[in-house]
Amino acid sequence: MLRPLFTRCGGAFGATASQAARPLLSSWQTTQRCYSVKPEAASASQPQDIDPSKLVVKHNSHPGSLKKPEDLIFGRNFTDHMLTIEWNKETGWLAPHIVPYQNLSLDPATCVFHYAFECFEGMKAYKDKAGKIRLFRPDKNMERFNKSAARIALPTFAPTALTELIATFAKLESRFIPDARGYSLYLRPTMIGTQKTLGVGPPGSALLYVIASPVGPYYPTGFKAVSLEATDYAVRAWPGGVGDKKLGANYAPCIVPQREAMSRGFQQNLWLFGDEEYVTEVGTMNFFVAIKNKETGQKELITAPLDGTILEGVTRDSVLALAHEKLAAEGWKIEERKYTMKELDEAANEGRLIEAFGAGTAAIVSPVRAISWRGKLVHCGLKDHEESGELTMRVKGWMEARQYGDDEHEWSYVC
Amino acid sequence: MLRPLFTRCGGAFGATASQAARPLLSSWQTTQRCYSVKPEAASASQPQDIDPSKLVVKHNSHPGSLKKPEDLIFGRNFTDHMLTIEWNKETGWLAPHIVPYQNLSLDPATCVFHYAFECFEGMKAYKDKAGKIRLFRPDKNMERFNKSAARIALPTFAPTALTELIATFAKLESRFIPDARGYSLYLRPTMIGTQKTLGVGPPGSALLYVIASPVGPYYPTGFKAVSLEATDYAVRAWPGGVGDKKLGANYAPCIVPQREAMSRGFQQNLWLFGDEEYVTEVGTMNFFVAIKNKETGQKELITAPLDGTILEGVTRDSVLALAHEKLAAEGWKIEERKYTMKELDEAANEGRLIEAFGAGTAAIVSPVRAISWRGKLVHCGLKDHEESGELTMRVKGWMEARQYGDDEHEWSYVC
Repeated sequence: MLRPLFTRCGGAFGATASQAARPLLSSWQTTQRCYSVKPEAASASQPQDIDPSKLVVKHNSHPGSLKKPEDLIFGRNFTDHMLTIEWNKETGWLAPHIVPYQNLSLDPATCVFHYAFECFEGMKAYKDKAGKIRLFRPDKNMERFNKSAARIALPTFAPTALTELIATFAKLESRFIPDARGYSLYLRPTMIGTQKTLGVGPPGSALLYVIASPVGPYYPTGFKAVSLEATDYAVRAWPGGVGDKKLGANYAPCIVPQREAMSRGFQQNLWLFGDEEYVTEVGTMNFFVAIKNKETGQKELITAPLDGTILEGVTRDSVLALAHEKLAAEGWKIEERKYTMKELDEAANEGRLIEAFGAGTAAIVSPVRAISWRGKLVHCGLKDHEESGELTMRVKGWMEARQYGDDEHEWSYVC
Repeated sequence: MLRPLFTRCGGAFGATASQAARPLLSSWQTTQRCYSVKPEAASASQPQDIDPSKLVVKHNSHPGSLKKPEDLIFGRNFTDHMLTIEWNKETGWLAPHIVPYQNLSLDPATCVFHYAFECFEGMKAYKDKAGKIRLFRPDKNMERFNKSAARIALPTFAPTALTELIATFAKLESRFIPDARGYSLYLRPTMIGTQKTLGVGPPGSALLYVIASPVGPYYPTGFKAVSLEATDYAVRAWPGGVGDKKLGANYAPCIVPQREAMSRGFQQNLWLFGDEEYVTEVGTMNFFVAIKNKETGQKELITAPLDGTILEGVTRDSVLALAHEKLAAEGWKIEERKYTMKELDEAANEGRLIEAFGAGTAAIVSPVRAISWRGKLVHCGLKDHEESGELTMRVKGWMEARQYGDDEHEWSYVC
């Protein structure tokens, strides 16, 4: 009999039928605080999808105090609760729970620790003028979350069901969102494989959880332009790889190039690809450049295309849509295409590089002053005293107007 | 003031000086069983390396019963204890502990869950005829573990110190190793980032742990040849990427292609690279082929070179060394070079493909019957009734002789 190391976990490695009938309690029992998952009847044959109507809420009896808004630091402090939904392959998704924020207790053999069965999303909840909580394009996050999960054999789910639960969770934590422009609640949906075996195969169980961290404006005192170092000794993503998915696997390998860039005085690194040195992403943000066409003088807003090597950013998509909506009429050409460092350098030398910015959920847009490339600095259009170009500021304004509901739009999901 | 999302964790995100003076207790306190990490004085300025003389052993007061040897399944059952060593960037490595096997309790914001700060090793402890426990080339595992850790900004350590601790741990668990050829104790050194913030940066704290799983022979009733599907729609690794490191990040993305191959009746997938379709690795093993040279008729043992896109396997290295030692004298040519599926197909068609096998710690060698490629089957030299070629069997014998100490050799580390 062959006893394969690299087995599909369906057989001997999977949960037994009797295990399937109850949540995998032992896989992440609580520690400091009280937590319990109620046993639940197994479904007949069709695995259950996420069902918001089954939500069980256990309030935190020791709610935390609020930090001063100006002391908020991204991803460091969290709210009183977390949203959790367990999955196993026999039953499907179990009942969602909102429970006090607490540690996960996991067997050291759990597959998330060994084989990076993990993916996540980054999204924000905003408080509008009327005090209502709003999510920004949660459908895009849910769509990407499902794509990421499927790529690493983690379970998928009904997007609207999770959005509804996240909305409920965000409303419950609304006291953590300071009532001022620029503040929001950063939400981190995360899915991890929880199977407790070292065999390399599809996880037979998983945990989806959402934690929330109140955050202040990325640039509290106004924009501050960053400088980048083009990385030529490491590659973030490649065709046929997973660089377009929001997997944990894409992040740890980015740290050393980022640290290298910082050691030479640059805030971020810029990822290039191939001998042509195509510009792809900045650090962990998408990247936009505005240049004047060499022949026609037409203004062009350019970003790399979704060819599998760049993250499919929600902010990227929104910036493109807004540009088509607002800039095209002003004569701009909006382009998703490959472009090279050489092209940027040439534009800079000829005074045609108007501005450049990163785009992501955390900063919305992040203006770029210069790029270190092949031993020289490519200046991205800012004057010495400027911290942002005009376009970058306009984009930020357009985005915030929709995020905070000033510009009522279908992108804004009222919780 | 700029408040960057993508910060180095040295500043606001790092542990404070007062925190540094004690282990990060709260980051993974015990749950079911009793566990405690003693406070420890901070070092002056030089971060501490791993110090085996500081080992603290807490025996499991409820030792588990032994499974029947024939019931052992890879990576599913574990021994009574685990080896743990915490690290933080101010103090360095804290005192090593051997404690009862237990869950890790981690904050849901811990960076290992989000950004795949995780790397591991796979190695085995063998029981020799005299009952002594032996590791096989642990120096190679420690060297690679350090390279993997460094690539994702996790801490490195003195290799001999960790080998010594693993030897102590393996000896402590020797009752779990059945006293028969083919059995061993699979050891899984693992390192995870334990910092509890969502900022993407170098972890300020980490946990190194080793768990152990008794395993039986990979092929209990003799070799069984596997068939492979060449994967042309996904790419495992890329020059400038991290495919040569043993990171969790390299594993989760492999599951879907593996599952796809299995759905069509193949046991494993074979990773190709580039338009040339270079052969790189099989599933998660290195790959060897034996062919007769088209012009000279000389026998050649070929494997892909260490160009950054394949794992630097300890078994691969050992097979190459043994081949140089034993096969070269018989007239074989041993080659680390790029080779393509086309080349294999041609050799197969001309009757020059002698045999092919995967090589890794779990199976040692795994004979390959055929490869599905471009809609046809490339037969790898086995007759229908054969489950292994002669060379594959000889390699297994050579390897086991050194692993179990029958052939006393410097590769074998007596604990």
